[in-house]
Amino acid sequence: MARIAVDAMGGDLAPRAPIAGALLALAALPQDLHIDLVGPTGIIEAELAALLAGEYAGLAHLRERLAIIEAPDVIEMTDKPSVALRGKTNSSMVLGIRRVADGHAHGFVSAGNTGAQMAASLMILRLHAGLTRPAIGTIFPTALQPVLVLDAGANVDCAPDELVQFARIGTVYAQALLGRPEPVVGLLSIGEEPEKGNTAVKEAHQRLRAEAGIHFLGNVEGRDIARGRADEGPFDVVVCDGFVGNVLLKFYEGLAPMIIGMVSKAAGLNPHDMAASLKQLDAEAYGGAPLLGVKGVSIICHGRSSARAIHNAIAVALRAHESGMVDAIGRKLSDGLPDASHSGTAA
Amino acid sequence: MARIAVDAMGGDLAPRAPIAGALLALAALPQDLHIDLVGPTGIIEAELAALLAGEYAGLAHLRERLAIIEAPDVIEMTDKPSVALRGKTNSSMVLGIRRVADGHAHGFVSAGNTGAQMAASLMILRLHAGLTRPAIGTIFPTALQPVLVLDAGANVDCAPDELVQFARIGTVYAQALLGRPEPVVGLLSIGEEPEKGNTAVKEAHQRLRAEAGIHFLGNVEGRDIARGRADEGPFDVVVCDGFVGNVLLKFYEGLAPMIIGMVSKAAGLNPHDMAASLKQLDAEAYGGAPLLGVKGVSIICHGRSSARAIHNAIAVALRAHESGMVDAIGRKLSDGLPDASHSGTAA
Repeated sequence: MARIAVDAMGGDLAPRAPIAGALLALAALPQDLHIDLVGPTGIIEAELAALLAGEYAGLAHLRERLAIIEAPDVIEMTDKPSVALRGKTNSSMVLGIRRVADGHAHGFVSAGNTGAQMAASLMILRLHAGLTRPAIGTIFPTALQPVLVLDAGANVDCAPDELVQFARIGTVYAQALLGRPEPVVGLLSIGEEPEKGNTAVKEAHQRLRAEAGIHFLGNVEGRDIARGRADEGPFDVVVCDGFVGNVLLKFYEGLAPMIIGMVSKAAGLNPHDMAASLKQLDAEAYGGAPLLGVKGVSIICHGRSSARAIHNAIAVALRAHESGMVDAIGRKLSDGLPDASHSGTAA
Repeated sequence: MARIAVDAMGGDLAPRAPIAGALLALAALPQDLHIDLVGPTGIIEAELAALLAGEYAGLAHLRERLAIIEAPDVIEMTDKPSVALRGKTNSSMVLGIRRVADGHAHGFVSAGNTGAQMAASLMILRLHAGLTRPAIGTIFPTALQPVLVLDAGANVDCAPDELVQFARIGTVYAQALLGRPEPVVGLLSIGEEPEKGNTAVKEAHQRLRAEAGIHFLGNVEGRDIARGRADEGPFDVVVCDGFVGNVLLKFYEGLAPMIIGMVSKAAGLNPHDMAASLKQLDAEAYGGAPLLGVKGVSIICHGRSSARAIHNAIAVALRAHESGMVDAIGRKLSDGLPDASHSGTAA
């Protein structure tokens, strides 16, 4: 049995999108999945009743796999994280994450205030030993296979040591959730030569080169992300600071539909039809990005997440739980080198 | 009369692409344009003879507007900039830039070693007073109109003051070369709120807000670049450090053809036909990126520039010269506020 807590009040489209997303997830994912909807009971019950009486009329049988967890406070998108956590201890965000820490739920999904979700996850779930910061892991489509890019926005100024931590965390994630047995890690920079990059990246390059347990490819450039490979070969994980990663992620999210629109127009095609046929470019396909490095599954979704995005984020939370990713990251960081047998072959 | 010096030995496709590009430019641009081909005379004469006897047979009448400037040394792509400049003072790169400094040419175009071109431009042309670093200005297509993004790779670690300098330089460039009378400047960050961003960006935001002569929109995000506008309105210039700008530029250059290819395939169309019909997404359309802030026109091209890219870069050099951009940047930086009449209306 798996149980995922969903923030019913998180996001621009809440409570409808999170609650509808929970129903979609229950319909599509294995029978032993249960979902906790966290928020004000009255609001959730009313929305659920409306959905089951209308658009989701066929899904009433799923109601028994849904629980409502009362949380009277709501953290707004504009609330400062610290203020929200101090003042709104009975919010859906705080109580949802607390259920993961207490072992009542195996993961938490929210499209609410990202800063507050990071702060609450840090405070309540806490970091693994050996880490100084968590990282947001996002999946980028490429011409080859999807790659994990981290950090996508949890840390704006990163020390070299933090970039090395992201390489370790990313290695475990790619093993556990992307099915890559020996993930290859690239460091995002502005040239493939080790001496290219900003101060933090140049030092991180030297550290990664010497790091056991990391299959370090070297620097990768912006164009390599789209290709999914550098001249030296393909990669599974791209490490960067959260400022660069967030700018890139949002640039991608804006650029892909723009180009699809332009190409469709030039070819006289319907851009919606085109976008629908290009599943691999769909930003909603992964639905949510895990906050990696904390001792529990906390999935961060876009503020404007649709029901479909929430459904996919719940699937990510479920896979993260079932893969044992959180414990694996902890082992990789504390015991050191689960795959040290390979590191001896590095040049 | 205008005269542009072209590095005949610069780039992966030299000497053919630069020499062919010069012929294309002479054929397409006004009659009073003259071009200096800088490099080893024997090599240039042989390549020119081959082109005029073959693919460019119809262009022999343009020969009289071409001069060959002897430069026996060649800076390789792998040379360290400092070593190249000390050891190869008779290189096409150094002698070409020197012609601009001496007033013999109005601009220089090279697809050679970018680091060496930056170093030689700084050493020989020198920076305008008031600047500590130059910036590479690149044009990004958007859903609205093209925008100038700077810096795209000249500076990897930028102080807040340097980001403010880029805003001033970019304002003049957008006026002079993009025809925007009152350019609006955005600061690339990870959220629109002033408190979002890394340390340098947060301080630059406050400085830009107080800066007279800059029409500062506020922060813009990655997705806004593709849209060409933030929620507050459209913009003409995006300021960022050279690490982020270079990663973004290369990501765009890799992603655009990848998406065009995927959409074309999904629609059963020829990707080359599609790319050809999408002129606004063509990275070669601008051909070269000016090194902004030095006292002379120095245009940096991709190492793998085609003849067409060189032709377009020569057009950029010509427009930069004719617009008086270099002097205008100097005035903006030293005298202060050429458009102070507008700054009084800023909030």
